[in-house]
Amino acid sequence: MKTLKIPEATIIRLSVYSRYLTEVERKGIITISSGEIAEGVGVSPAQVRKDLAYFGEFGTRGVGYNVKDLGRDVLKILGLGEDWNVTLVGLGNLGLALSMYKGFKERGFNITSIFDNDPAKIGTIVNGIEVMSVERLEEVVRKNNTQIGIISVSSEVAQEIVNLLVKAGVQAILNFAPVVLNVPPEVELRNVDLTVSLEVLTFNLKSGK
Amino acid sequence: MKTLKIPEATIIRLSVYSRYLTEVERKGIITISSGEIAEGVGVSPAQVRKDLAYFGEFGTRGVGYNVKDLGRDVLKILGLGEDWNVTLVGLGNLGLALSMYKGFKERGFNITSIFDNDPAKIGTIVNGIEVMSVERLEEVVRKNNTQIGIISVSSEVAQEIVNLLVKAGVQAILNFAPVVLNVPPEVELRNVDLTVSLEVLTFNLKSGK
Repeated sequence: MKTLKIPEATIIRLSVYSRYLTEVERKGIITISSGEIAEGVGVSPAQVRKDLAYFGEFGTRGVGYNVKDLGRDVLKILGLGEDWNVTLVGLGNLGLALSMYKGFKERGFNITSIFDNDPAKIGTIVNGIEVMSVERLEEVVRKNNTQIGIISVSSEVAQEIVNLLVKAGVQAILNFAPVVLNVPPEVELRNVDLTVSLEVLTFNLKSGK
Repeated sequence: MKTLKIPEATIIRLSVYSRYLTEVERKGIITISSGEIAEGVGVSPAQVRKDLAYFGEFGTRGVGYNVKDLGRDVLKILGLGEDWNVTLVGLGNLGLALSMYKGFKERGFNITSIFDNDPAKIGTIVNGIEVMSVERLEEVVRKNNTQIGIISVSSEVAQEIVNLLVKAGVQAILNFAPVVLNVPPEVELRNVDLTVSLEVLTFNLKSGK
């Protein structure tokens, strides 16, 4: 289906526009201009129009966009018309924070299983889910038809967990361990590195931007 | 000093190269080629050379880069030759995870104060630091000469906290609250949105990449 390469920055902004449109819709607003979206999220109106143009024609010239329609279209573009079945591996502080993060559920990401290798944590209930031993990962992830894995384990065991997830049929992995991981080409991998964000800040500070 | 606009993706990759070079240096390796760096972090050799070229000439043709020299140069580019004084505001699960995150200290980011508004948390010690009331934020942040603020509070109070941090002289803010924040132009703001990363994954899955 895709013929044009969509910049990742566009996808990231669409995700932001989408959250903003949900907010605006809740306030009962019916139509919105690209300028108003731009102002709400802190980009230029031309950027909003360019990002949307990758995916077709939206809105009516001189009138703007129907908030509800555009919101639904952008959700669909982002693959969020449906619910996603997510597993979380590693229940340290970060894992605990992620397991309780409300933003995931709101956007259709349902954490349906949690794994750890600490006997003190196995069997406890976190956010309504029983924490299971990593030994059961492959079986449970496969049985649940889990599409996405979130990894918040230590760097040392991260590749091992990735291998288990891939074997169990997971299609996409979000990795918080600060290590380079290998996945087969059919699996999507995305790394979230908390330090990188701080370093972009310090680079900008030092370069006098 | 800066005349050329450096793409943010370059800065993000430099941060990744930098961590990789530290790893390689620890193994006692003296020289490295762009191909080896590229393989280590999962990008193309041409990308490594292009990213470094923004900042001058590094390495010797046919020999490669001195690991230690390049590591030091990249750190300096990223503004990491020195230590940064960081405050953390909001000690929920995510805040707790961030306060204990080892990666920050390793890269020169020292959390020197932690604030929350929950009486049950104020006065407790987290990672050697006494949690203080937000009422004391402005005074303490200013006294410590704090340059960077990390915000992991709820969306409702995030702007209020930003205003306090700016007033107290913070130069850069890393925000984990899923909300659009306003800062004066001289302050660097960066948002980390945990959901956006998942949505880039689902977009890629749906578009059949």
